Amino acid sequence: MLKKFPDDSVGLVESQAIEFNDPLELACGRTLNQYTLMIETYGELNADKTNAILICHALSGHHHVAGYHQGDTKPGWWDSAIGPGKAIDTNKFFVVGVNNLGGCHGSSGPNQIDPQTGKPYGPDFPLMTVKDWVVSQARLADHFGIWQWAAVIGGSLGGMQALQWAITYPDRLRHCMVIAAAPKLSAQNIAFNEVARQAISKDPQFYNGRYYDHDEVPKTGLMLARMVGHITYLSDDGMREKFGREMSAGKLMFDFNPQFEVESYLQYQGERFSTSFDANTYLLMTKALDYFDPASEFNHDLSQALKHVTAKFMLIAFTTDWRFSPERSREILDALMDAGKDVSYTEIDSPQGHDAFLIPIPRYMEIFNAYMGRIAADIPALAKENTHAR
Amino acid sequence: MLKKFPDDSVGLVESQAIEFNDPLELACGRTLNQYTLMIETYGELNADKTNAILICHALSGHHHVAGYHQGDTKPGWWDSAIGPGKAIDTNKFFVVGVNNLGGCHGSSGPNQIDPQTGKPYGPDFPLMTVKDWVVSQARLADHFGIWQWAAVIGGSLGGMQALQWAITYPDRLRHCMVIAAAPKLSAQNIAFNEVARQAISKDPQFYNGRYYDHDEVPKTGLMLARMVGHITYLSDDGMREKFGREMSAGKLMFDFNPQFEVESYLQYQGERFSTSFDANTYLLMTKALDYFDPASEFNHDLSQALKHVTAKFMLIAFTTDWRFSPERSREILDALMDAGKDVSYTEIDSPQGHDAFLIPIPRYMEIFNAYMGRIAADIPALAKENTHAR
Repeated sequence: MLKKFPDDSVGLVESQAIEFNDPLELACGRTLNQYTLMIETYGELNADKTNAILICHALSGHHHVAGYHQGDTKPGWWDSAIGPGKAIDTNKFFVVGVNNLGGCHGSSGPNQIDPQTGKPYGPDFPLMTVKDWVVSQARLADHFGIWQWAAVIGGSLGGMQALQWAITYPDRLRHCMVIAAAPKLSAQNIAFNEVARQAISKDPQFYNGRYYDHDEVPKTGLMLARMVGHITYLSDDGMREKFGREMSAGKLMFDFNPQFEVESYLQYQGERFSTSFDANTYLLMTKALDYFDPASEFNHDLSQALKHVTAKFMLIAFTTDWRFSPERSREILDALMDAGKDVSYTEIDSPQGHDAFLIPIPRYMEIFNAYMGRIAADIPALAKENTHAR
Repeated sequence: MLKKFPDDSVGLVESQAIEFNDPLELACGRTLNQYTLMIETYGELNADKTNAILICHALSGHHHVAGYHQGDTKPGWWDSAIGPGKAIDTNKFFVVGVNNLGGCHGSSGPNQIDPQTGKPYGPDFPLMTVKDWVVSQARLADHFGIWQWAAVIGGSLGGMQALQWAITYPDRLRHCMVIAAAPKLSAQNIAFNEVARQAISKDPQFYNGRYYDHDEVPKTGLMLARMVGHITYLSDDGMREKFGREMSAGKLMFDFNPQFEVESYLQYQGERFSTSFDANTYLLMTKALDYFDPASEFNHDLSQALKHVTAKFMLIAFTTDWRFSPERSREILDALMDAGKDVSYTEIDSPQGHDAFLIPIPRYMEIFNAYMGRIAADIPALAKENTHAR
């Protein structure tokens, strides 16, 4: 554990499990009668509950967005952007991180106990869509008495949730930040996801998703899934810069051990992931990605889907991101412009590919900061009368 | 079987196994004392043996390049380019196709019997390099009494062999056609190969490469390897055009069966491949790709590596090829220009990604044809005296 947290860190944080008993009807036709959302919050909710920001996570993310858990030396996954004085300034905002339903970090999901059977849900946990998540997150807002988010913010799959928020609940957010996302997956995106799913589901240790009963995990499948994923998160240029053709032994070795630095790196990433993430959740998250296509309900016209949106938008894309390239963000930009909405768009020059959205690149953080200033300025002045009434 | 072959087909063809007993020293330090090369030839070798063209194959290719085997309804893998009146005109040229050492189509390789043990080589077959193949192909030229190829031609890994030919045997080819290739793999290329190798070698049916003894094949591993490979052979645009987000059932189905057309397509390709290709060969071929780097022996200066080249070069790249993008072909172009060599370069506009090199795209075939005319014009006039002397 760190002896002292950095000054701009939210410091020691704890997760909370929030129980919901209102049945949640899902896009797949099934209903979750009760469910848990695992969350974290940073900063203070103001009296009017108008300074709240929701952070939506990506494929392998979770509710632990910033700060440190007891004993940890590494902070939450977006600590670089959240804390006192940081872009998402916890002196000004109340920040909520949530593990999505179907996740594997404490919210109801395949690796959690189904109260109806007393056993892990496993493959019986229903497939979730981005819209299902947004509905569950709205219930979370209700739990806090938050009517309107100051902003909903997310990168990648998280950005898709932010976009869906603006469509499903136009009145319930003032700003929408969609980072390194796309309005729907391309055939190539789906293809990579399908390779990952095949790797997991054909692993003999997968047991049709009931590996919990066998005290096993489909380690190889998850490792392969993560290796493929990882290649798509980095850029060709970035990998060239980071690894080039450097060889561990300095010369060609004629065997099948990892030889080039990039091979060892990927294997390490894959193996680490395979013991820390749940395979059923990986399958479910990739399906939610594949299925996301808000325009499909509007005759495939995204600007129609965005017609009733009232949030102001900030879109950010990264030059070498080839998973969700700037072109994909510009599809959202164009649709918002066609619909006559308030939208800013920035393309950040960076070699880090899709991963860039998690990295505090100076120009990115500068623009992020500036836009957060706009979000802070849009917080309504405290309604004094209401405050007095308390 | 076809009742009648197309007029521009070389028609019914047969493979030949050529035995070699001269020990072949390999880059890995080991020696093949005897080996077989499985080949096919089309057209007639002229009296001076100056009209011969060597076709080098790519990762999953082989010696059956054109025409039909008895009973087949589909021709060899590059039939579109080879035949009477086609780009590589068998009325003018004697064309040689060869299965590379380590392959799985009849040349000495992991799935063939090791004469010293009476059992399949399996993982004991030595790792091959592009240079090893070129040396073995030179012995094949010797076998036919061919001193100088009119051209050595190849796409992808085949193009690397053509390039290596020009470096290793500068006097033994007049033209070198390098299509959709690169002077060495990038870190990203190696990363995708490593995913494929991990998928194969971690398949429980792989048995450390001795699956022949168990009467099994690592089907899942090969399927995954091919699926990943296939994504890199197609382009994002091409996949969008071909599959889009079309769903087999016409609507979302909330299960893990293939749902989008692109999923079914990839699974089909993967499964077909997994029963027709040898896993050890796949490992070996990807390693040969990773290791190819002719500049590495010349202080990483490709123009130095090409200094003694005398062949004239034709380089062809395809706009949407992201496995070996036009930029990679231009690295070869620049090095040849720096070295003051005779080189033509064409970029073909096509949506088909890396696969384009196998497709008879009109503009591609037009340029191919024109350049083949140049190769035909460079065949020395028959040396009458020599002919008389016979």
